[in-house]
Order: sequence, then structure tokens, then C-alpha cells
Amino acid sequence: MNTKAAYYEGNKTFSLRESEYVPPGPGEVRIEVAYCGVCGTDVHIYHGQMDRRVRIPQVIGHEASGTVAEVGPGVENVAPGDRVVVRPLQPGEPAAVDNACTHIGQNLKFIGIDTPGAMQTWWTVPAYTLHRLPDAVSSRDAALIEPLAVACHDVRLSGLAEGEHAVVIGGGPIGLLIALVSQRKGGRVLVSEVNPQRRALAGELGLATVDPRADDLVQTVGRFSGEAFADVVFEVSGTAAGVEAMTKLPRVRGRIVMVAIHAQPQPVDLFRFFWRELRMIGVRVYEPEDFDEAIGLAAEGRLPLERLITQVAPLERAQALFETIDQSPAGMKYLLKCS
Amino acid sequence: MNTKAAYYEGNKTFSLRESEYVPPGPGEVRIEVAYCGVCGTDVHIYHGQMDRRVRIPQVIGHEASGTVAEVGPGVENVAPGDRVVVRPLQPGEPAAVDNACTHIGQNLKFIGIDTPGAMQTWWTVPAYTLHRLPDAVSSRDAALIEPLAVACHDVRLSGLAEGEHAVVIGGGPIGLLIALVSQRKGGRVLVSEVNPQRRALAGELGLATVDPRADDLVQTVGRFSGEAFADVVFEVSGTAAGVEAMTKLPRVRGRIVMVAIHAQPQPVDLFRFFWRELRMIGVRVYEPEDFDEAIGLAAEGRLPLERLITQVAPLERAQALFETIDQSPAGMKYLLKCS
Repeated sequence: MNTKAAYYEGNKTFSLRESEYVPPGPGEVRIEVAYCGVCGTDVHIYHGQMDRRVRIPQVIGHEASGTVAEVGPGVENVAPGDRVVVRPLQPGEPAAVDNACTHIGQNLKFIGIDTPGAMQTWWTVPAYTLHRLPDAVSSRDAALIEPLAVACHDVRLSGLAEGEHAVVIGGGPIGLLIALVSQRKGGRVLVSEVNPQRRALAGELGLATVDPRADDLVQTVGRFSGEAFADVVFEVSGTAAGVEAMTKLPRVRGRIVMVAIHAQPQPVDLFRFFWRELRMIGVRVYEPEDFDEAIGLAAEGRLPLERLITQVAPLERAQALFETIDQSPAGMKYLLKCS
Repeated sequence: MNTKAAYYEGNKTFSLRESEYVPPGPGEVRIEVAYCGVCGTDVHIYHGQMDRRVRIPQVIGHEASGTVAEVGPGVENVAPGDRVVVRPLQPGEPAAVDNACTHIGQNLKFIGIDTPGAMQTWWTVPAYTLHRLPDAVSSRDAALIEPLAVACHDVRLSGLAEGEHAVVIGGGPIGLLIALVSQRKGGRVLVSEVNPQRRALAGELGLATVDPRADDLVQTVGRFSGEAFADVVFEVSGTAAGVEAMTKLPRVRGRIVMVAIHAQPQPVDLFRFFWRELRMIGVRVYEPEDFDEAIGLAAEGRLPLERLITQVAPLERAQALFETIDQSPAGMKYLLKCS
């Protein structure tokens, strides 16, 4: 079989090689990867910002769909031929500080960052990371299950209830998925996004939008909610402007969900937390039930996942695809076809 | 009857006059005030920092105990002679943004700040603000019910469960009350406080303490908790150092309770919220059940409320008492005897 793998070599460079055949050990499964989506984290790696964490040269990627090719001893949850997606978390030794949250434990390894990833034909992973795909979900759409599971996790932890008003600050891929999941759960959703093309796409997907540079965001949220203001605000922008806005929009006891990764401390209006008894909820990756929910939502066919796919390229074109992403501030999801 | 009232005149000045007789209207009650505690907010008023909100000359004060002297038409929940404390919140017209939280609604008036207060012999207030005192609670201790209700509210909203580790940043009156309530509920409590006298008092009250300037707070919390770290962190210090520390101490999904009033935005490590799925809970004043709980705790007699009273002065000495408070960084609760 003609296999291939895109290796990150440092300095914004991928090399193309054969995919390494790693025989599945006990509890492991070898997958033939169908599609692998490109995550913002992969772009950070490409930019060299995580060179201390990855092991150059390394195959990266963790938003994968595929088919079980071979199972190791003791594997019972999947069989060769099963179509699957991978929940790329490898819990380590439990620590007291983990509070039994294995999905973000201190000794967690993130598969595709801390270990080899999915931008290759063959990929050997622990069997417990796999979720089987129903026929209704194409392998192409299934490459969006991982970011969709992020959105399901974030919306679940927000406690969003039917009829509540939600504001999503930042209309990139995760922001739009959060907005779509929130809307599917009966939320009344407004997306705040500065990029006109991203706003246009959100509008085409049936989401209300606002340009926070053109319109007063507080007034807009007031009008949108009948002056009730937001039950939930998702900060997905990762910007200082987003952090400044996030405390102005919730009603009393509204919840702010901190989705974005803010590398530096940001000024936060803590008075507002006191004054309106606001709550902030940090969220990171997903738990198994979030993958189950994401697969269920995708199978239901009511989320326009296909519309979020900006471009699909063959694995051989990984280098060119990352260069395209770098030049496309309005782009959404980019996939690599891996076999 | 010889009545008196301390009027705030602006510019760190109180004048002494007679207490105005305000006949109780429908639904109102005239109280003969026994004791009134001095809140940090009263000190802010004394310093002129709230001159735009109070109406000079104004009687201030809202931490009161007393006896019902006269009831207006329609009052059924109390009768003359009843000993009571006052929950000094006067809800206004409900607004959509309030989310049905009348205790912090948009049109709330705070009695003793937005309306006349308790530093006088006679005080006429709405009957619905009153909670009756059991015999077991002295009128002197009862002047601490209001701040104790703040602590009950904060601990309740923290969700603290028996056996959980709690860190209180800031060992002033509210901080120590939060620590004592947390301990009474089965929490394992550590108080971080820079002032040696306040630390000493906390220690005498049976609380574990740490000096965050002498010892590494993160390491200390780690040792204190068997490396599990904090389930709950109460930020009561109102300092930038407290805000910097608060995100370092919780375990995964730990809760930070924002008790302090931070007038200015503070840099917050939002990455930590993401990384450990932290939560932050803003808290403000109290709800009726918190007053009930505070009264119950005081009646139980197991909280050392008396030990928190630094000084009691007659109302005539209000000016001197505020001057003393200003010079006493280690002082705790100061009371005025009003009749």
C-alpha cells in the first residue's frame, strides 16, 4: 500500500515521507486515516511556537476520521472495518490536583502534539480513544467531530437552557460551532465577529451577527435580548477587546465561558463579577460524552458541517495548505485527505 | 426619650443630633436600634468616596440590631418588643436584566447608603427587611449578623462541601467570617493574611494561617491539602496580589469566589481558567435565607462572634470611633451603641 505522512520539521516546514507502520500493541488499534482537520494548535506548531513540546521531526494532527485497519490484543470495542473518530487524549497517572478530571489531568498527553499525530495514512492509537461512526456521518464531515466535541463540551458546561440568550465573541471555527450547538439546543444566539466574511458565513448559517467595531455591542445585546442581556457569553476571540466586552454583556448571574486561550494575563473587570454576581467557567477539550453528543448531532444532519469546510487538500499538499491558512483570516476548517 | 443620631456631614465629619421620629407608614416598622456595626462601606463614605451617592447630611449604617418600637398598618411579621436584625435591601422595580435576583436588582436601594441608616436611636424601615432574633443571640453579637450573612451567602454560593479545602485570601472581618462559616460546614480552611495581628487572631480562633509574604503560598496550599490544592478560593483581599494568587491555588475545576470589590480592572490569568477548567463566582450581599442561616449559626453559639468585636463605643463617640478605625489596620469589627 502506498502510504504517506507529513512530518513537521520546524521553521514552517513539512516534509513528506512514508507513514510508519506501528503494529498495534495490547489495547491499541491501527487506523487508516481518512481525513485530518487542521486545528489552530497545529498552526501554532507550524509557526514554531510549540517547538519545546513537539519532537521534531513529528507527524502532528488530531482531528481525524478513519477506518480500523488492525487491532491489538484485548481490543473489544472496535473491529477492523469500523469507521471511527479519535478522542486524542491519553490520560497519565492520576494526581490529587486533577480532581478526578482525567480529560485535563496533570499527566495527560495530547495525542498528535505530545505523541505522533494523524497527518499520515496509518495511525496507531489506544482503543479507548475511539468512537464509532454511524453510516449517516461521512468520513469527511467526521473530521469536524473533534472541534464539534469541543463546542458540545463548552455549551454543556455553560449550562445553556432552551430560550436563553447566548453571545459568542469570535466567529471562527470553534465560535461558529459553539453558536450552532447553542442554537440547536434552543438558545437565542448572537455572534460578534469583526471579519465581514466570517460574519457573512455565520449569517448564511442562520445565525444573528454583529460587527462590534461598527455597532455598540452592549446596546446590540440589549436590543437582541429585550434588555434581558446575555445568560451566557462565550469568549472565543482570544483578544483583549473580547475580554473587555465579556463582562459588559451578561445579565445578573450570567455565565462567561472562557473558551479562548489567553497566553498573557488580561485586565478583567472584577467589579462586574461582584456587582452582577457573574460567573466564569473555564473549559478545555472534551469528555467522552461530548464526543458521543457531537457524533449524534452530526448524524442527525441538522448542523451545516459541510459549510464550515473551506478547503480539502491531499496530504502531499500539507505545506501548501498551511501556507494558505496563514493567508486566509476568514478561512474556517481546512482538511487533509490522508488516504 | 433622649434620642441621638450621628449625621455624616462630608469631609470625615460626623455631627450629633436628635434622632428624627419617622412614624411607620403602611408596611413599615420603627425600631429602637441597639447596636450598629461599622462596615468598610461606611468607612468609604466617611472618607468622602461615596459623596455622590449619599445625601449629606445623612445618617448612615446598616449592620444593626434592635427592638421593634412601633409598627405601621398591615405589619404582621413582627410586633412591638420583638428583637430583630435588619436585612438592609430595598428592592425596586424589577428589570429584565435582574434575572429575578431581587437582592441585587438594577433598581435596588441599599438602606443606610441610598436611604437613612442605623447610626441613630430610632430607625424606620420596611417590615420585610426584618428577621427576628432568638433569645440565644445577644443584641451586641447580633450587630454581626449582617456581615455574617454576607459570609453565609459567599460560602453557600461557593458550593463548599464537607472535607473540601478552602483558602481565604484576606483575613479581615469578612474574610474571617467566611473562614469560620466554611470551617463550621466541614471545610478545611487556610487563611492567607499579611497582617501579623490579624493572623494571630485567626490562629486564636482555631484557623490555620499563612503569611503570603514570608511563605510561598502555592507550596503552602499544596502541603496543606496533600497536593490536592484548593476546592474553593475566596478572594477577599481586594489587592492585585490577591488576584494574582487566586488562580494559582485551585485544583482542577476549583472555584474562585470574588468577594472583594475591585474598583479597577485587574490582570487575571485567564489561561489558568482554561487549563484547569476553573470557575469564578461573583457574590454580593445576601438573600433572606442567608440571614436565617446567620441567625441560626449565631444562636448555636459555636462561632466566636464576640472575639471579632474590637471595640464598642457610644453613638456620641462616632467621630472618634471612625478616627480610631482609620488608625487600626488590624482592627476587626467596631460597633456603635445607639440607645
